[in-house]
Amino acid sequence: MTITDVFETYREDLAQVEEQIQLSLDSKAVLVRQVGNYLLQGGGKRIRPLLLVISANLSGGSGNAAMLLAGAVEFIHTASLLHDDVVDGAGIRRGRASANNIWGNQASILVGDYLYSKALYQAVRLENQRIMDTLSDATRVMSEGEILQLLKTGNLDTTEAEYIEVIEAKTAVLISAACRLGAILGRLPEDKEEALAGYGMDVGLAFQLLDDALDYTAQQDRLGKSLGKDLGEGKLTLPLIHLLSNSTPDESAKIREIIETQSHKKSDLENITSLMDKYRSIEYSMGRALSYIERAKGRLAVFSPSPHKDALAAVADYVVERDM
Amino acid sequence: MTITDVFETYREDLAQVEEQIQLSLDSKAVLVRQVGNYLLQGGGKRIRPLLLVISANLSGGSGNAAMLLAGAVEFIHTASLLHDDVVDGAGIRRGRASANNIWGNQASILVGDYLYSKALYQAVRLENQRIMDTLSDATRVMSEGEILQLLKTGNLDTTEAEYIEVIEAKTAVLISAACRLGAILGRLPEDKEEALAGYGMDVGLAFQLLDDALDYTAQQDRLGKSLGKDLGEGKLTLPLIHLLSNSTPDESAKIREIIETQSHKKSDLENITSLMDKYRSIEYSMGRALSYIERAKGRLAVFSPSPHKDALAAVADYVVERDM
Repeated sequence: MTITDVFETYREDLAQVEEQIQLSLDSKAVLVRQVGNYLLQGGGKRIRPLLLVISANLSGGSGNAAMLLAGAVEFIHTASLLHDDVVDGAGIRRGRASANNIWGNQASILVGDYLYSKALYQAVRLENQRIMDTLSDATRVMSEGEILQLLKTGNLDTTEAEYIEVIEAKTAVLISAACRLGAILGRLPEDKEEALAGYGMDVGLAFQLLDDALDYTAQQDRLGKSLGKDLGEGKLTLPLIHLLSNSTPDESAKIREIIETQSHKKSDLENITSLMDKYRSIEYSMGRALSYIERAKGRLAVFSPSPHKDALAAVADYVVERDM
Repeated sequence: MTITDVFETYREDLAQVEEQIQLSLDSKAVLVRQVGNYLLQGGGKRIRPLLLVISANLSGGSGNAAMLLAGAVEFIHTASLLHDDVVDGAGIRRGRASANNIWGNQASILVGDYLYSKALYQAVRLENQRIMDTLSDATRVMSEGEILQLLKTGNLDTTEAEYIEVIEAKTAVLISAACRLGAILGRLPEDKEEALAGYGMDVGLAFQLLDDALDYTAQQDRLGKSLGKDLGEGKLTLPLIHLLSNSTPDESAKIREIIETQSHKKSDLENITSLMDKYRSIEYSMGRALSYIERAKGRLAVFSPSPHKDALAAVADYVVERDM
């Protein structure tokens, strides 16, 4: 099963999610629809709604509640992008001007708050305690992860374990929650719910690992973001962490100097990427991503064969194949 | 009963709320405690927790859940202050440097997100659907109110009704929710719950009306904010709306010019405040605040006499007496 087959299989469900998203963007404040739609129609892959919908189908629990929750999860994700871009002072998101670039920081902050509160408001209306436990826990951990990331900015002693902790919180937890919500809707037994939640966590970790590796390798026009953006922002991601702990003292000192002076010179970036080639830091990160994907697929063993199970495996593979 | 008596009566409950707040500030991210405590210990009057605690006592439902929710409501309020100050570019809050001034916009945005998500996370753990309905509705309306306020910035045609709609959403709804939560904890019948919620809404409207009037009259050292701050930010509050619709065409044209050129000259502010004296615009706003307070107290008629009922009346009076 290819990712195209997957999207085709759940086309109808995903169309209903889009309808739900449009309904939820309805507000007295027109800015919500403008900013919300700009981001929501800006080329996001809807991975989180897709995983929620597949998980719900696998669990026998698809229906209106799944569409509504899929929309809510995408809103929470969109809200975090809006705030992230303000925090990072980002000018570009997915190859287009970022929302803060067009409407200003004020609109991005407030529309982010609105999307977040609207998502929780809609989830509350399902009157399901376990759904609210899952969503409120995920959002709490996400926001803590964002702060941890901010605090580690420019910290050259960040370890791989600390990095994994941050990307688990800021990215993987919401993807895991999307999968768990599908399981809750289908009233799966605990072991299967945990398998889906674990699958989502692993897929989320791999997703972010790959994203951070691509930051050093991708072409701007393909990934829609600037090369070396994380470096410029002082964000220590795995390729750089790996490089710092594997290079010679001289090389390491040079890298530290580049980061500390916050140099944005092209030659400095090239210097670092060529050292990454030498020490295979990108390959190391990709390898870590692949091992999470293998673990994710392994977790699906508790489910009997079905097209939905195949779809989850296909999404896992897709996550580490995209844009390379 | 004076406001001092009120605070003395609920001293023990409020001390437990403070404990709850400190427990909730616990996070792996130290920045949460730093920024959170700075704001939470910056002279806020804890009006929202106080009203929740009194309402719960009046309803016979005080206890751990009340303390926890009182802390959650204060967290939501604090989160909105953090984001407001970034949106307004405020440098001062309650007479001290604002959090964004000290820790930067990034920290204010992310800690605000964290306090908000932590508040909802803790409320969810009470496993009470009506509590989540109330809180999630309040936060959704609040964030919409903030956007409506942003959209009306500099709009000289803002009407009194539109202004009331904004302050209801951004301020009164959370105070109303605090009172309603107390009623829910005490399982009050619907009419009494609505009376408390209505009381909170009226008190909240009066509170903001007074706040906006004081913006044109208060001494910086007493209220801890700059005179004419709203004017400088292009926020049309009731004194200015009243003035614009009551002054002569010539005067009105001059006022519009001052606002549109975003002049921050002292003489311009004095020009406007002396016109407000002439047309009694401040008195008009204060009068509106007082009438909401009267309505708030009137709503308490459904309750039989008790010290808790007296306390609510005393808080209502206090709201329009403070700092004048």
